[in-house]
Amino acid sequence: MPPLVTPLTPDRTLDVPSLERLIARLIAAGVDGLFVLGSTGEAPFCTDALRVQVVREAVRAAAGRVPVLAGVIDTQTGRVLRQIEAAQKAGADAVVATAPFYAVAHAPQIRRHFEILGARADVPVYAYDIPLCVHTKLDAEMLVELGAAGALAGVKDSSGDDVAFRRLALRNRAEGGPLTLFTGHEVVVDGAYLAGADGVVPGLANVDPEGYVRMHAAFRAGDWTAVRREQDRLAALMEITRVASSVTGWGAGVGAFKSALVAQGVLDCDQLPEPFEALDAGDAEAVRALLDEAGVPPPLP
Amino acid sequence: MPPLVTPLTPDRTLDVPSLERLIARLIAAGVDGLFVLGSTGEAPFCTDALRVQVVREAVRAAAGRVPVLAGVIDTQTGRVLRQIEAAQKAGADAVVATAPFYAVAHAPQIRRHFEILGARADVPVYAYDIPLCVHTKLDAEMLVELGAAGALAGVKDSSGDDVAFRRLALRNRAEGGPLTLFTGHEVVVDGAYLAGADGVVPGLANVDPEGYVRMHAAFRAGDWTAVRREQDRLAALMEITRVASSVTGWGAGVGAFKSALVAQGVLDCDQLPEPFEALDAGDAEAVRALLDEAGVPPPLP
Amino acid sequence: MPPLVTPLTPDRTLDVPSLERLIARLIAAGVDGLFVLGSTGEAPFCTDALRVQVVREAVRAAAGRVPVLAGVIDTQTGRVLRQIEAAQKAGADAVVATAPFYAVAHAPQIRRHFEILGARADVPVYAYDIPLCVHTKLDAEMLVELGAAGALAGVKDSSGDDVAFRRLALRNRAEGGPLTLFTGHEVVVDGAYLAGADGVVPGLANVDPEGYVRMHAAFRAGDWTAVRREQDRLAALMEITRVASSVTGWGAGVGAFKSALVAQGVLDCDQLPEPFEALDAGDAEAVRALLDEAGVPPPLP
Amino acid sequence: MPPLVTPLTPDRTLDVPSLERLIARLIAAGVDGLFVLGSTGEAPFCTDALRVQVVREAVRAAAGRVPVLAGVIDTQTGRVLRQIEAAQKAGADAVVATAPFYAVAHAPQIRRHFEILGARADVPVYAYDIPLCVHTKLDAEMLVELGAAGALAGVKDSSGDDVAFRRLALRNRAEGGPLTLFTGHEVVVDGAYLAGADGVVPGLANVDPEGYVRMHAAFRAGDWTAVRREQDRLAALMEITRVASSVTGWGAGVGAFKSALVAQGVLDCDQLPEPFEALDAGDAEAVRALLDEAGVPPPLP
Repeated sequence: MPPLVTPLTPDRTLDVPSLERLIARLIAAGVDGLFVLGSTGEAPFCTDALRVQVVREAVRAAAGRVPVLAGVIDTQTGRVLRQIEAAQKAGADAVVATAPFYAVAHAPQIRRHFEILGARADVPVYAYDIPLCVHTKLDAEMLVELGAAGALAGVKDSSGDDVAFRRLALRNRAEGGPLTLFTGHEVVVDGAYLAGADGVVPGLANVDPEGYVRMHAAFRAGDWTAVRREQDRLAALMEITRVASSVTGWGAGVGAFKSALVAQGVLDCDQLPEPFEALDAGDAEAVRALLDEAGVPPPLP
Repeated sequence: MPPLVTPLTPDRTLDVPSLERLIARLIAAGVDGLFVLGSTGEAPFCTDALRVQVVREAVRAAAGRVPVLAGVIDTQTGRVLRQIEAAQKAGADAVVATAPFYAVAHAPQIRRHFEILGARADVPVYAYDIPLCVHTKLDAEMLVELGAAGALAGVKDSSGDDVAFRRLALRNRAEGGPLTLFTGHEVVVDGAYLAGADGVVPGLANVDPEGYVRMHAAFRAGDWTAVRREQDRLAALMEITRVASSVTGWGAGVGAFKSALVAQGVLDCDQLPEPFEALDAGDAEAVRALLDEAGVPPPLP
Repeated sequence: MPPLVTPLTPDRTLDVPSLERLIARLIAAGVDGLFVLGSTGEAPFCTDALRVQVVREAVRAAAGRVPVLAGVIDTQTGRVLRQIEAAQKAGADAVVATAPFYAVAHAPQIRRHFEILGARADVPVYAYDIPLCVHTKLDAEMLVELGAAGALAGVKDSSGDDVAFRRLALRNRAEGGPLTLFTGHEVVVDGAYLAGADGVVPGLANVDPEGYVRMHAAFRAGDWTAVRREQDRLAALMEITRVASSVTGWGAGVGAFKSALVAQGVLDCDQLPEPFEALDAGDAEAVRALLDEAGVPPPLP
Repeated sequence: MPPLVTPLTPDRTLDVPSLERLIARLIAAGVDGLFVLGSTGEAPFCTDALRVQVVREAVRAAAGRVPVLAGVIDTQTGRVLRQIEAAQKAGADAVVATAPFYAVAHAPQIRRHFEILGARADVPVYAYDIPLCVHTKLDAEMLVELGAAGALAGVKDSSGDDVAFRRLALRNRAEGGPLTLFTGHEVVVDGAYLAGADGVVPGLANVDPEGYVRMHAAFRAGDWTAVRREQDRLAALMEITRVASSVTGWGAGVGAFKSALVAQGVLDCDQLPEPFEALDAGDAEAVRALLDEAGVPPPLP
């Protein structure tokens, strides 16, 4: 279930034709859903109007073939509730929410936050565990209890904490599996499958969806040798997110995905939102070289 | 220049009469400005509609007697620009913006962020340095350069880093003082004055504005013994933010301010925004006891 | 290759008979080596005299059947070199060293640190990547280059960063595998094997060495279903490190291992070094209950 | 009370004549004590033998004119106790100990650690609050209670947390002042005096002891204008710790102090301990330029 980048025109409005091509390509590759407005999807950069437009266009382009999940990223409960309302109205099949951020909240408030979201949303709510961005880690016991209580449908784990993910998976299984578990880490999906992940939400799947679909099929078939081989190949491809020298931080990763998608003919433009700027020509060339090296994927016809 | 709390009714809408009383009381005490929608002011909790209402009501109540600064807290440049537009339209005299947060940005992007805000805002922009919330520290050289270039009018320093603040003040003075410098820390204002602060934005001034006004007057008069005595008294009073056991994190501090303001007859209600809840009766009693002990301030007539 | 706990008498001297029983049991279970004076092994608590005694007794008890690796944990290069000298003199077959800590060192100094250790040690040096304790993460490129240059023989990765471990394994393989890679995380060994780990250094193997030996054999045989099943069982057993309420931090984990070993009849005493104290009776009972639940391992005859 | 650098010869043995000159100069300037083996004093780099030599030589050179405090920096209680024994035997008048580090300890263990040190040391114990190095902050209530109980004689606060220092000073005063409080931050001493510091332990005083002695005298005389003027001058001089480009982290600061002391004719050599290297010629020139700009201090006759 790829977290889609948000294609922009040079003047930073939504590039709808590029978004349509991206979605067509992902569905053709066999993905099981589309996640828009995640961290990769530029949620923290998009104005509310742009967010609504992204969801609406994705729902239209998906046309019911796969579900569309929407990130509802905002600082605290009241603001997230507004994002949920907007995403629902735009047609999202489910929403993905983080812990509160900016103002310091502790365990009781984090729990209450998700309880409120779960109670007031009309669609399923997934918890997004991303301490790099929100600076708190979601507790495994709390998540499973919220799942058992019906507040949460699942978890997207981008915590980078495989030990905690194993505990989460074990707790979840012990309670009958109320939560669907996704890992967000492109290069350790094989280990996450062993630990108990049901699926994966990899930013790199914008660029190589076929690889992740193959890996998932091999996992379903119990062919761990094939899983591992595919993962090693994708881990090498993930180096595209580390070659940029013209931009750092968030922009290096998403910038590389967009640059690769331009090279593949999927996007028209690799523009990034302010205050970031697209990869420069040298960085884009380095991305293309790694794509060639990985032999994947060929430009679209 | 106090960062106003945002009074709420029990059902968490804006309590306008309480806001009016708060503003009347602060202006009567002699404050030089009003800062709404800071971290104390619940910005991360307020919906956009509520934010606009707060600015509008504060501007109306201030009636031009003192300027109104508005926090425009949001994750990244594009969203902050929308907040600036809304605050300007609602009548704010200046805006206060943090570094980008949620998505990781580094020095070049942080600089670009403030350059864009400064270039596009119609009112002065103050930088809000608050690493506890945004998880990056603003660099002194960058701030002074942005001040000299006209992008920033000043800095509200809530970084808790007095060593860096001294450097900022020295750099600022060496460049002719392009920035107006405020400290946001209630209990070390005397040291900040020595270091070069022009003023202070203390949350505790909601509760004891007269004390901070007296301390500022003593500072202007060069009477350091009086400055220190007042600061020690206020530092003791600040313990009200540490007595809560029913709520933690952001809610313990702002909850205590609101609880004290109810005890003083300024606010009707100490409600906090979701996912926080107001201090319980025992905590509120502990706040009142500390107010009595400090001998300040008597209930309004 | 288990990181041995350091058995203490009630008055906190080395309990040699317990150490002998522990080593006999581990070797009987089929471990490939013994790692003494790691973090589990109380290195930061042991005086230099006690460290020498631990290495000497372990070497004597191992009697050449398996190699003995010794932690040489100290703050900076000069002090670590003294620890290496002492460990070598006491008979250690290899040493395990962290990045510098306490005083802030950056990449060039960390690299130089390991270059110096590698150049001056007479035995192989393993890098110990443990940011929880030393507050810096070792860089994959640097490690592989130090391996290729002969300064490092391998890495014990206790970083909790599975993404970085995958990169390390891929870089290492691309350079011909100069480094032997161990993971230090008890509950995600299966994923680490998939990623490229050669082995594991799990504190829990003090308590259930047979389980880890079985998992390693299944890995060698390519039987991933058996690997995973064993890992899930061991991950459940690892909950013993989370039940303590009488002690926290380092003491909760090592305290639980020692308490379990007393229950198994391997150690005479579960004493911890100052300023920690052993688990209280209630916590020890909770540990025993989890041991029973896991069905492993039966008390020694 | 300056934290002395540890002068080294080019081959990194103790440079006794340089240490003697440094001590003579500091005592001539009017300092109230000497603190050896702090963080500035290279404690984490010095072998135990070198540590003993430093204390012994400092005690000999001080010749009873001012007390000698010795850092007893080591990871955990047992190892710190050995350092205390050695420092006492070498003649130290008091010792300075940090919280436990490397292995994670929480509040109860940190308290117990200092209780044990206080109970077993024959000389006064000062707590060294330095979260940058040990990654925990000492709690004000705990410190004052340990002071009242006789376990601690005082605190050297290098936490960079002026808000917490104010609370510590207020709590200490409320309990009758059982602790003597020092700040370790060179550039905010004036604010620390206002907050309640009794003295200062500034690394920069190796280079400009006269300035800190003058500032302290002005503080004792209640002449805050003079205090502030001196502090501003010293804060500008402190920029020497930020000019290095050939070395970073710990080495940039201490390297600059040593480089300045060579320029002043106090030290023969600016060597740093492994894995650091002395400032290169360009950096040393930049340090000298700042010394000239500050007009202080002239080379010794």
